[in-house]
Amino acid sequence: MPEPILDDISHRRFNPLRGSYVLVSPHRTKRPWQGQQESSNKIELPAYDESCYLCPGNKRAQGDVNPTYDSTFVFVNDYAAVREEQAEYEPPKQDGSLASRLLRAEATTGKCYVITFSPRHNLTLADMPAHDILPVINTWTKIYTAHLDPHSPLANSAKPTTLPPASMNGHPVPSPTQQYRYMQIFENKGSAMGCSNPHPHGQVWATTSLPEEPGIELVKLREYRREQGGCNLLEDYAKLESEKGERTVFENSSFWAGCPWWATWPFEIMVVAKKHKRALVDFNDQEREDLAETIAEVTRRYDNLFETSFPYSMGIHQAPLSGTAEEIEASHFHLHFYPPLLRSATVRKFLVGYEMMAEPQRDITPEQAATRLRDCGGPLYRTR
Amino acid sequence: MPEPILDDISHRRFNPLRGSYVLVSPHRTKRPWQGQQESSNKIELPAYDESCYLCPGNKRAQGDVNPTYDSTFVFVNDYAAVREEQAEYEPPKQDGSLASRLLRAEATTGKCYVITFSPRHNLTLADMPAHDILPVINTWTKIYTAHLDPHSPLANSAKPTTLPPASMNGHPVPSPTQQYRYMQIFENKGSAMGCSNPHPHGQVWATTSLPEEPGIELVKLREYRREQGGCNLLEDYAKLESEKGERTVFENSSFWAGCPWWATWPFEIMVVAKKHKRALVDFNDQEREDLAETIAEVTRRYDNLFETSFPYSMGIHQAPLSGTAEEIEASHFHLHFYPPLLRSATVRKFLVGYEMMAEPQRDITPEQAATRLRDCGGPLYRTR
Ligand SMILES: O=P(O)(O)O[C@H]1O[C@H](CO)[C@@H](O)[C@H](O)[C@H]1O
Ligand SMILES: O=P(O)(O)O[C@H]1O[C@H](CO)[C@@H](O)[C@H](O)[C@H]1O
Repeated sequence: MPEPILDDISHRRFNPLRGSYVLVSPHRTKRPWQGQQESSNKIELPAYDESCYLCPGNKRAQGDVNPTYDSTFVFVNDYAAVREEQAEYEPPKQDGSLASRLLRAEATTGKCYVITFSPRHNLTLADMPAHDILPVINTWTKIYTAHLDPHSPLANSAKPTTLPPASMNGHPVPSPTQQYRYMQIFENKGSAMGCSNPHPHGQVWATTSLPEEPGIELVKLREYRREQGGCNLLEDYAKLESEKGERTVFENSSFWAGCPWWATWPFEIMVVAKKHKRALVDFNDQEREDLAETIAEVTRRYDNLFETSFPYSMGIHQAPLSGTAEEIEASHFHLHFYPPLLRSATVRKFLVGYEMMAEPQRDITPEQAATRLRDCGGPLYRTR
Repeated sequence: MPEPILDDISHRRFNPLRGSYVLVSPHRTKRPWQGQQESSNKIELPAYDESCYLCPGNKRAQGDVNPTYDSTFVFVNDYAAVREEQAEYEPPKQDGSLASRLLRAEATTGKCYVITFSPRHNLTLADMPAHDILPVINTWTKIYTAHLDPHSPLANSAKPTTLPPASMNGHPVPSPTQQYRYMQIFENKGSAMGCSNPHPHGQVWATTSLPEEPGIELVKLREYRREQGGCNLLEDYAKLESEKGERTVFENSSFWAGCPWWATWPFEIMVVAKKHKRALVDFNDQEREDLAETIAEVTRRYDNLFETSFPYSMGIHQAPLSGTAEEIEASHFHLHFYPPLLRSATVRKFLVGYEMMAEPQRDITPEQAATRLRDCGGPLYRTR
């Protein structure tokens, strides 16, 4: 059991994966809420929507027509944040001037994909059984593999060859024209999380630069490995949490899923590979099935918690597409789920003033959150 | 002029105050928006609301009655995130176990105040002329002074003695029972920013710990000072920006206000003291008036931009209440405004999936944002 005193006092918890703190104020949920209410997502959607740019057979904003796909479907984002081709930019010389010191920029190129999770407009991952989530994992694995540096130690990981090719307008995903450094796979779910289309889909942005968050984590993972004689931070962490159990929401033989000790969002969940897996490409068939089961269990519990389609942002952190052997070996596959709701289907936690200016602050403990999510198992509330 | 190529290509800009990057994708605003619409704040409010817990003479949630104040009014938050008194917590011993390495916590005590900016329920800083904002600045200065470590080099800064005392239920702000490390002054404005009461007010949280964000900035400010022979990063930056002009929104002889080179939010503004000022307590009467003018100019332009009551979180970063002489000397007074709106009064930028998992990303350049805000001067649109 956690020390019960932490349920009552204000304290800071340390996040060893980022080297940062979060302020925990467990007594704070008692305050009344008179602020903004979210819409509660009670609208019934059709299985096919002719105005949706993701439904099979429909035309997209820039004129392309989607194939009549029956599982996942991948295409290059029509409004990509980064592109493969753009004008060359040469940063100004470091000449010791104030401008060269304080106004620094560098060009970034890359590629943005959209991946639909299902042809059906009105499903979400929470509605999908594990065997329907497996094709999504297979598609992620294929895209990751197609962009991997051929010189990476991961390129020898032969396991995903058993996967069917990810289709893109019916063709396999093309190889990129340049070598990217990192691939961020993520999903924004729900309008509260900036998602503008309810059709189940996620995104993949590959860039020539290593973005901030995986970059920070990689520094910490490498430090831990050096300091702890080759042990892996997240392997150790999953082992510890699985033994303790108080922050566990779900686990199977390959993954631990729970509210991390250092969670920022009220019902934040981290999914961690129990063994040392560097990236999607390291999983065998059984492990991919276990990951599908874990994602199904997490997303279903989220929806059951407040009996609503639970909004979140989800993302995968894993080894960079290209990097040093040490960077790739220190990487450890995990998923973050950042959901905004706090008290009900309509009252969210705002990470605003103090959180933006000073430090993230949470109102319930991760142990309280995990207990509630653990108890939300069973069939999806909508189908009961 | 900035290099025009940066208006067209994806690039990353470096933030030397945090040591972090932001991804800029200027072409991205072209994508259509079908997502969440914010409410546009068109509701007319009364000057006095009998159900508001901040209006003069009203009773608050826990029974205290507000005085009939006529300018600002300070009280201890009825639902404080940190408190002066709580049970003692002794962190577990560092015994080399996984738990002691990965499940780390420390107790935090502190004090949370609420400060009303005006007795009138239906005003905002944007409605208030500079001479009505001055009492707010004076109250911030008084609270900061009352919590300052008596051994701090700042304690000798005699300038604020000319200020009238900040009143708290008609009494001066009491001295704290313990020495705090940092004081975060901030305002959440608008329901989109988690503000649950439109009555103009801000908050002050003082804590025994130095929070993350000012802690990160302090490291960078100290580094710059050491590396640049005693120069101050933000003094250099304000000088450079004031000369260049392309990111300037407003300036007077004491402050530069503009969209920083490394802005994350679409219309983010930073207000920087032009001379080296460590904290509120360093300002003379003229400088406090200049700060009031700058806050008036910034908030009025925000409202004029989309002709709406513009939501934002605003916060002051300055010297810690207690710290080493070097920390205090390296501190430089500045304000951050983080507003969420992107395209109109109802369409915001969501910093979600990619931004949470990988790296902040923005859709317009800071130069484009500053040009629009610069052109929004003049009287408040509501009064024209
Ligand atoms: O204290 P308030 O205004 O009730 O609450 C607001 O500001 C706090 C400090 O930024 C946040 O922790 C809350 O999530 C937000 O709703
Ligand atoms: O790409 P989408 O789904 O249109 O847009 C959404 O996700 C992006 C990536 O997290 C964000 O930059 C946008 O602010 C958000 O609205």
